[in-house]
Formats: sequence, structure tokens, C-alpha cells
Amino acid sequence: MGNFKYAACLWALGGAADRFCPGGYTDKSATLKELVEIAGSVDGMEAVEIFDSHLDGIDPKDYLGWLSDNGLKTSCITINTFGIKKWKLGSITHSDKKLRQEAIDTCKKAIDLALRIDRPLVSLWLGSDGFDYSFQVDYIKQWDTLQESIQEIAGHSKDIRICLEYKLKEPRKYLIIPTVMKALFLAEKCGDNVGVTMDFGHALMGKEKPGESAALLGKYGKLFNVHLNDAYGDWDDDLVAGTVHIQETLEFMYYVGRAGYDGYIGFDIFPFRMDGTVAAELCIKNMRGIEKMLDRIDDNILKKAMESLDAGNSQRVVLDAVYGV
Amino acid sequence: MGNFKYAACLWALGGAADRFCPGGYTDKSATLKELVEIAGSVDGMEAVEIFDSHLDGIDPKDYLGWLSDNGLKTSCITINTFGIKKWKLGSITHSDKKLRQEAIDTCKKAIDLALRIDRPLVSLWLGSDGFDYSFQVDYIKQWDTLQESIQEIAGHSKDIRICLEYKLKEPRKYLIIPTVMKALFLAEKCGDNVGVTMDFGHALMGKEKPGESAALLGKYGKLFNVHLNDAYGDWDDDLVAGTVHIQETLEFMYYVGRAGYDGYIGFDIFPFRMDGTVAAELCIKNMRGIEKMLDRIDDNILKKAMESLDAGNSQRVVLDAVYGV
Amino acid sequence: MGNFKYAACLWALGGAADRFCPGGYTDKSATLKELVEIAGSVDGMEAVEIFDSHLDGIDPKDYLGWLSDNGLKTSCITINTFGIKKWKLGSITHSDKKLRQEAIDTCKKAIDLALRIDRPLVSLWLGSDGFDYSFQVDYIKQWDTLQESIQEIAGHSKDIRICLEYKLKEPRKYLIIPTVMKALFLAEKCGDNVGVTMDFGHALMGKEKPGESAALLGKYGKLFNVHLNDAYGDWDDDLVAGTVHIQETLEFMYYVGRAGYDGYIGFDIFPFRMDGTVAAELCIKNMRGIEKMLDRIDDNILKKAMESLDAGNSQRVVLDAVYGV
Amino acid sequence: MGNFKYAACLWALGGAADRFCPGGYTDKSATLKELVEIAGSVDGMEAVEIFDSHLDGIDPKDYLGWLSDNGLKTSCITINTFGIKKWKLGSITHSDKKLRQEAIDTCKKAIDLALRIDRPLVSLWLGSDGFDYSFQVDYIKQWDTLQESIQEIAGHSKDIRICLEYKLKEPRKYLIIPTVMKALFLAEKCGDNVGVTMDFGHALMGKEKPGESAALLGKYGKLFNVHLNDAYGDWDDDLVAGTVHIQETLEFMYYVGRAGYDGYIGFDIFPFRMDGTVAAELCIKNMRGIEKMLDRIDDNILKKAMESLDAGNSQRVVLDAVYGV
Repeated sequence: MGNFKYAACLWALGGAADRFCPGGYTDKSATLKELVEIAGSVDGMEAVEIFDSHLDGIDPKDYLGWLSDNGLKTSCITINTFGIKKWKLGSITHSDKKLRQEAIDTCKKAIDLALRIDRPLVSLWLGSDGFDYSFQVDYIKQWDTLQESIQEIAGHSKDIRICLEYKLKEPRKYLIIPTVMKALFLAEKCGDNVGVTMDFGHALMGKEKPGESAALLGKYGKLFNVHLNDAYGDWDDDLVAGTVHIQETLEFMYYVGRAGYDGYIGFDIFPFRMDGTVAAELCIKNMRGIEKMLDRIDDNILKKAMESLDAGNSQRVVLDAVYGV
Repeated sequence: MGNFKYAACLWALGGAADRFCPGGYTDKSATLKELVEIAGSVDGMEAVEIFDSHLDGIDPKDYLGWLSDNGLKTSCITINTFGIKKWKLGSITHSDKKLRQEAIDTCKKAIDLALRIDRPLVSLWLGSDGFDYSFQVDYIKQWDTLQESIQEIAGHSKDIRICLEYKLKEPRKYLIIPTVMKALFLAEKCGDNVGVTMDFGHALMGKEKPGESAALLGKYGKLFNVHLNDAYGDWDDDLVAGTVHIQETLEFMYYVGRAGYDGYIGFDIFPFRMDGTVAAELCIKNMRGIEKMLDRIDDNILKKAMESLDAGNSQRVVLDAVYGV
Repeated sequence: MGNFKYAACLWALGGAADRFCPGGYTDKSATLKELVEIAGSVDGMEAVEIFDSHLDGIDPKDYLGWLSDNGLKTSCITINTFGIKKWKLGSITHSDKKLRQEAIDTCKKAIDLALRIDRPLVSLWLGSDGFDYSFQVDYIKQWDTLQESIQEIAGHSKDIRICLEYKLKEPRKYLIIPTVMKALFLAEKCGDNVGVTMDFGHALMGKEKPGESAALLGKYGKLFNVHLNDAYGDWDDDLVAGTVHIQETLEFMYYVGRAGYDGYIGFDIFPFRMDGTVAAELCIKNMRGIEKMLDRIDDNILKKAMESLDAGNSQRVVLDAVYGV
Repeated sequence: MGNFKYAACLWALGGAADRFCPGGYTDKSATLKELVEIAGSVDGMEAVEIFDSHLDGIDPKDYLGWLSDNGLKTSCITINTFGIKKWKLGSITHSDKKLRQEAIDTCKKAIDLALRIDRPLVSLWLGSDGFDYSFQVDYIKQWDTLQESIQEIAGHSKDIRICLEYKLKEPRKYLIIPTVMKALFLAEKCGDNVGVTMDFGHALMGKEKPGESAALLGKYGKLFNVHLNDAYGDWDDDLVAGTVHIQETLEFMYYVGRAGYDGYIGFDIFPFRMDGTVAAELCIKNMRGIEKMLDRIDDNILKKAMESLDAGNSQRVVLDAVYGV
């Protein structure tokens, strides 16, 4: 069953910083061209996912040339409204009309950009929209503002598919779109060209079963974009895919496949203390292993086992595939 | 702002068992009549919430008499499909048509019962519908079955309001309705008389901010029933209300109030090792404290502070009320 | 490197109950003799772990005969002080001297029993010793009492090795011995014949890395007993071993091996909704897979990779073994 | 009972950055002198806690003058080995002898510095010592190295008390000293002048009851330093103290008091999106509220209630104090 296309999230290939080491843990400070070349050097990588800010000061034509030279596509542009000082208390949900409009306009500009390159997905990950303390925001107002802003953004061009990426928390203690069902609920309210970016580790952090979340998004036609990585379950660890939750990854890919997903699987990892290229290679390597496990499963036998609702039956089928014994 | 009506969940007033002590930690084995009398003895308790199974073998007229003698109403009947052996792998979502129909019929019987007493809410808490292992169920089939079954149940009588109670897990490792947004999504799909039972501790366990969940349910007219208790956040601890998350409880009650909720606040606690009556009295006592805090807040000042999005402003207002300094 | 002996925990082979279904989810109510036979029927199972209460009313000679008939040993006797009504607020740490002494005497009786059969380990899992609310107990007094009681129990016979089994919570909201380091600290204070029962799922629940906990216990000569199972990380799920955390299980067994552990690996699972025998068979099956992975690792290469501290190096070695690619 | 001295952690008063906004969320970039002045301006603040790196390029005499001008002392110097690129894979536990020695020497330099000012505590928070993946480090070697290094550092001067600050994770996925008991175990092995910095939010993140952890450290004479803040329990949120876990904070301060702790309570908060001075003022304000609650508790009555082990009894006493009703 396994037959997936993979993309490198470019932010995973440069160095990473954190609150204790804002200067970053590596000396690497690669240009966009170099990041594209690194992505292209990883066997099996067919596309890249970028931030809109990656293209600041870059001529899109140059970027398209670099992609072409490396045999890559753009899977998705994620809009950076989350790392900008002025929006620290909110971007497209800010209570200040002017600040909010600036954020919305930034999103529209990213959509225009997408129209100029190869029409990738455009993804909203609202990392600074949420709250940290009780009573910090008026939840009802914030929610209404969120919907209106997304509708305005999605209405900017029906030719671009907009993805809402959900995540429980970080950097805000509570993010405004924390779970798959809030993302799906919003996507249904906000229009046909609004769907969801589903991130494996975000699902784990939200205490979801990633396979179930993918199944539900698929059922409602809203599985627009997929991020893969791994995590220990309480935080967005952004580890190399396939290192911790092997059976969960297998199940996730099974449902991504059943959803008929034909986009790219983007590796959204944050290798703070590991070489980014090595990390990307390990992701691909593990996914080859997962694909082989999927191939070892006979879907008819599995479906019959699932129909019984008895985990003894289905685990027997799956564990054969996992352990190869 | 504080002006709430409280209800005792009758299962909190008898003894409690667990997997290590299935015989229960107390010798108490009270009859329904006795449980009603205990509830009536707690100052400030105006109603009871029951399981449908509490009325097995009881003439509803007798029950109504006991309530009347104790000055109580019935706030809600929760249907017990979760503690019955034959439904251990699923009740209204079971893949076996016969077993599933038996579960649906049990729900209809509970609705008929509700029509015969004072038309309380009827609540579905699907404790045995979900999964424990990857690949145990077909998520898409289970989801479709869930919707169809709820629609059939809700269609049985438009005069009774049906509540879906969400909870992340336990006893299944993953429950089929885990979060506020899945409950809300379903409620919207399943009809006007379908809403949500929101439990404070379940919201914490689902990593929600209870106040935000109440606000959203209120906005969509789906806050049908409220359960109060407290918890440490990783499990459904069912502690006495107001013992751990004081500011969260305050915020929750603030939004329950803003939603115009006029039902009962049911104390869904599980005092395994404490006297049930004492526990119920402490719940009321703490809520009187919370109500006083609410009264100390000037809503106009608070709303202005929230409008600024700066937690420094709103915390100043709220902490004055909390600490009374 | 893989070469382990496995034991069935007998409580995993009968039916299981919980707070919602105290009568249990199965009709099975097997006698001790039958449980031993079930354990004996599972290919690869070489011993059983029992509760002292399993032998209530049984002649130890009969029990030894059943074991012998099934080619089994006793790996460990876990003392049941946790499921007894009178000790609901504490057993060997109870503030009431009489109740406490009764609990201590129960432990001594279990030691005497161990001396009469084949001198298995005796394990203390203090499930009812702890607290549920702030200020419920005086932590300092409870701690002192705990140490004194363990010392008295361990002093009863130097020929029996006593294990302290740690677990974060359940059934108490906080258990008195929650983590590996509290268990190790106590074991060091309480005598040479006091060590630790380490449970894989308990380590995960305590947010430990199971391999690291095993390594530390091994280093201090305190890894007396090992329980294997799996879990999602926030609760003692007691799932079939090797179903969720495959790399963690591999690492755990690696360090159990490096510790020179020559006891049994007991499967402490709770198959509420799965057949106990099937669950036990799946545990063994998965461990055969884990053993094969271990065999595929060259320890010298791995150690060199670990010495570099770079996860890229060690993951390459390990993932080859895991995915077999 | 309440009578505490408070200190400002200087890193809480300037701006804060994170992985998404490495440039920081504020424009503020205060000098050490300015930070001391801000601390001095907060009513009730009697000392400051600093990083050793705060004094880079500063003459200690100047610093002492600024303190004196503002009526402040230094409570503690925390050594920054965690935010330095070269130690990203480990500082005093690094497998590379040269890098490790450089880290140890940095610690010795901080001790020398402490001897030159007013002999504050010196604290080790080993944020980059730990691991992210299974098999990344050899746990046994890392542990041995840790002990040896701490012993070397603590041996540098017996006149300075060294604190080990434990924390479950971040920035490493697993930190080498994650819990109170590992810190205590190490402190006991490493010498009389080695104790523990206990951080309230770290205890919550480690699923500890902060009051219990303080009680145990106090009992063994190892409660050297106290950090206060608040958190939601799954992460080191570093919120304003007294905003979330009010009863837990009360209990914590009760046991800090019972331990005879006479040091400073340092507010280790990270107000990413709130003004640092406002946050510090709110901390003090809330602690005044907590102190009043403590004063409302009669310790003899509380101790008698705790002796009963029945939470109904003790909660009645405590909730009177909390809610003032």
C-alpha cells in the first residue's frame, strides 16, 4: 500500500535556536539557495516546504530555477505571522484592527506569491494567536475574529488551497487552533478551499491517535497537507520520523493512504543538536521501513480483523508486519 | 455575577470501586431512596443526576415522591451503556448490528423514562466506545456508525434534549468522543436537540481551558449540561470541586454564566476514600467561595482588560478577586 | 545479546474489572490451578508471578505440584495490601499503629510463604499508600513511617529479596513510591536485600526513559525484578508488550541485559477487553522480535556511536536493526 | 506562619526569546545595572538571582555598588553552561574530556566569583546535559561522569554551597537531573555543600507534589534554594506565581516554612509577552495573598486533621483559609 512522496521543510535544514540559546546551536546560516540544494541532495526528497519569509528579498524566478535545478517542487508555503514582535499578542486575531489587518494582508501576499510560483498549498500556523493565562482574552470575540479573518484570507483567491495547522501549544501556552476537530470545524465553516495541515507530533501532543485524525480529515475532504516527525507525546519534540511511535506511524500512513492523499509528506522536524541533512536522510530511511511494513499487510485480512473489534485479532496481523516474524 | 443551581450526581454519594478493589472501598450500599435523601441533606443541593440503571426495578412514581419529599428535581439521566459486559467492545458503535441495536434501544428506553418523570436531560457518556490499540477499529466505519446511532436516538423524541459527554479516555484507552470540538461537531450534525455535557475535569484531561470550551459551547447553543469537579490534569481524578484549579474554576463559571446557562451544575466526583456527603458539602462550600470571587469582579473593567490582550492587565483584576487583597 | 526468561503475571490471565464495571468484563473466573495451566500453555513462558492472596486457602504443596506439572517456577510474590478496604488510607504507612502493624504482618506472612516455596522474590507495590489532596498527609511523617516499615519487613528474613515497585499514581492520585529514584533511594537506605521491581509502563508514566532507569538500578545492584508491558505514557495502560514503544522496549532490554539481570521478565498486563492468553502470546511474540533486533546490533559499533553523543550516529545503527533495512 | 524573603531572577526582567522568535518579543535589552534597578523598584523584592554570564565584562565591585544602592543582596548565581554552542551535546558530562573540563572550569570560576561578592549560592542547571533519542548516550557512563564532575566542582571551595537544579526536560528532551529524588540522591553522594534548587514549576512538570518534594529536601537538609512560579503541569511554563495552582502553592510554602528555610524565594518566571516588572509585582502581590492564607491556618488543627489521613478533615481546614469563608 505504501507509495508516498516526501518533502523537506526547509527550516529543518538550517540551524535551530531556543529560549536558552537564541543564537542557535550551529554555525550554519544557509541561504535559501543552499537550503534547496541540501534538500535536493537527500535521496527520495521530491519537494520543499517553505516559510513565506524564506522568499523575502528573493526573486521568485530565481527560486523556481533553484528548485528546477534540484528536481524539486514547492509543496507548501507556511506563513510566518508567529515570529514577529508586533504580533506577539496575536496576528489575525489581534483585537487591534490595524495590527490584525496587517497580518491578514501578509497572508494575502503569501497567496499572491503562491500564485506566482507553482501554486503550492498555503498554510497558516497561528503560533502567536491564543492565550497564556485565564481571562487573558475574550474567548468568544477571539473565536469570531478568527473565523472572519480566515474567511477573508481564503476568499482572496479560490485557486489556492489554504491549510490550517493545528497545535496544542507553544509558543503560546494555549493556541487558538489546538486540535484536529477545531481545525476541521473551522475548515468546514470557512470554505471549500480551506483544509488542514496535519502534523503527526501535534496530534500526539493533543492526545489524539494520529491515524484517527487523518481518517476523519480524509473523510471530510480536508486532509490538505501532512507533516511527519515523531515526539514523546507531551511536547512538539519534532524528532526524526519513525524513531519512537512506530506502530502509530504505520497506522497514520495507512489512513493517509486510505484517504487518497496525493500531496507530499513534509518532514517538519527540528534537529536542534543533529545535522539537518542526516536527520532528513534518517526520516526517509525510516519511511522506507514503514512502507515495507505496509506492504506486508493484507488489507482484506486486516479489515476483517478490525471488524471484529478484538485487538487480539488485528494486532496479530499488524505485529507480523512490524516485527517481520 | 454568581448565581448557580447545584445538583448531586448520585453515583458520588455511594461507595466507589476500582480495578484493584472491585468490591469497593466502603461498606455503604445505599438504595436509591437513601441516595436521594443524602442529596437532599446537603445544604444548597437542588437536584440530582442519575444513571438510568438507578431506576431499574423502581416505580418512577416512587422516585418522584422521594424527590419531592427532599425538595429536589432530576437534572439529568446518564445512560449506562459503559458498564455492561456485552458492550465491552462498543455499545451504540458496535460493529455487530444486534448488539448495537440493543444499545440504541436502551437509550430510547431512557428517553421514554425521561418523558415519564420531569423531562430531565438525557446524557450519553460512551465509556466503552473507542479503542485501545492501533488498528483495533476502522475509524471511518466507527465514526459513521456513531453519527447514525446518535441521530436515531435523538430522533426518538424531540421533546428530550440529548447530551453528548466527552472524555479523552477511561475506561477505553481512547474514547470515541474525546474533546469538546468533537462533541460540538457531532452535536451540530445530529440535530437541534443534541448538545453537550461538559465536565470540568474532562476538559482539563483533554488539555483544554475549561472556560474556553464553555464559551464555545455557549456560543453555538450547545452547553446543555455542566459537570463540576477538579483534577490534576492528566486523568479524570473526579476530586472535590474548587480544590486544585481555582482560577480555572472561576473562569469556567464566568463563561457558564455568560452563556446564559440556566441548568444545574452537577458535581460529578468520585470520592473513593472520602465520605460522599462530606465531599458534596465541600463542593458547595467551595462554590460559594467562587461565587464571591465572581461578585468581586467588575465585568466592564475585566472586559476592557481582556480587550488589551495583555495578561498583566486582566490578572490584576482577577487576582484582586481571588486573593481578596 | 537477547536471551531472556519470561514469566506470566497471573492476574493478567483472568478477567479484569474497573470502576465502571466492578463485576468485570469477562465471565472467566479461573482457579489458581487453572491460571497456572494457562500460563504453562503459552509457549516460552517459564515462570509465574502471583499475589500472596492467590494462595489464600491453598496448600503451597499443591501449588508447587501444579507449577511442576506445567514446567514453571515462581518468579515473584506481590503482596496485596492495596485492594483491602481497611487499608484504603494506607497500609504499611498508616498513621494508626494497629492497622499499620497488620499490614506489616501481612508482608511477613508473605515472606514466610516465599520461604516455603521456591524462594521467589517478594514485591511490595503500595497502591493505597500515598495521598489524593494537598495537606491530606504529613509528608515527613509518612516518609519516616515508610522507611521504618520497610526495614522491619526486610529484616524479617535476609534470605528473601524484597522488591519495591514504584508507580506514579493509581489508585491513589499520588503514590508514596512514584519514581525509580525514590525506589532506589529507599532501597539503599533499607538494606542489601531490598531492591526494586521496575515496570516498563510505570517508568513511562513517570516520564522516565525506561532504559535509563534500568541502567541506574543495574549500576547500584538494585534491579531485582522486571515487569514488561506497554503504555501511551500518561497512564498505567498495561498493554501488550512491544505494541507502542518499540525503540524504547529495545533500549530497555539492552540495558536489562547489560545489567546482567538473570531473573524473569514478567508480563504485567491488564487485558480488560482481550483474551488473557492471546495477550500473553502476543507479548512473547513481540519479544522474539525485539530479541532479533538486539541480535542485529553490534554492541561495539553502538558504543562508539554513543560515545560521540550525536544521535545521528547511534540512530543509524539502531534503526538498521529496528527496520531491518 | 508566612514570613518569606523574595528575590527577582534577573533573566525574568529583560525580554525573552524562543525558537520561533529568536530575536525576542520585546525591544528591551537592559544592562545589568538597569536590571538591578528594576528589581529594586519592585516593592518587597530583597535580592536578585543572576547568571554568571550577567557579570561578563563587569567589575564585581560595580555590581555590589548597584545592589547596595537598591537595597538588594545576591541570593544565587546560576551558571550558564546550557546556552553555549560548544556544549550543545553536554557540558560537565560531555564525553570529550577537553570540553568537559572547560565546563567544569567555568563552574569553578563562578564559585570564585561568588567568593568575591557576598557568597551567594551557586546553582547548576544542566540544561544541555541529557539526551534526546534512545541510545544517544551511554547512561551509565553519563551518570558516572556527572557525579565525578559535581564532586570536583563542589570540592573547589567548601565555603560555597552548590545547588543542583532539577528539571524534567527542555531544552534537551530528557535532562540528566530530572526529578527531586535524583537531585537529592546526587546531593547526598556529592558532599555536604551540595544541595538542591527546587523550582515549583519543575516539580509540577515532573508530576511531583511540590509540597512533598520540599518536605523531603528539607528533611535531608538539602533545600538550599527555592524558585517560585506557576505552570499548567506539562511544561516549564514559568508563569507568574500563584496564578494557577493556589492550593499547591500554599502547601509548598507551608513545607518550605516547616523546613526552616531561611533563604530567598526567587521568582523564576519567563514573561515572554508580559512586562517583566508587572509580572514581578504580581508575583509579590499573590504571595502576600498566600501568606495571609497561611496565617489563617491553625497548624495544630491542621496537623490533627492530617493525622487522620482523611482528606475531608484537612480540606475543611485548608479551604476555610483559601476561600476565607
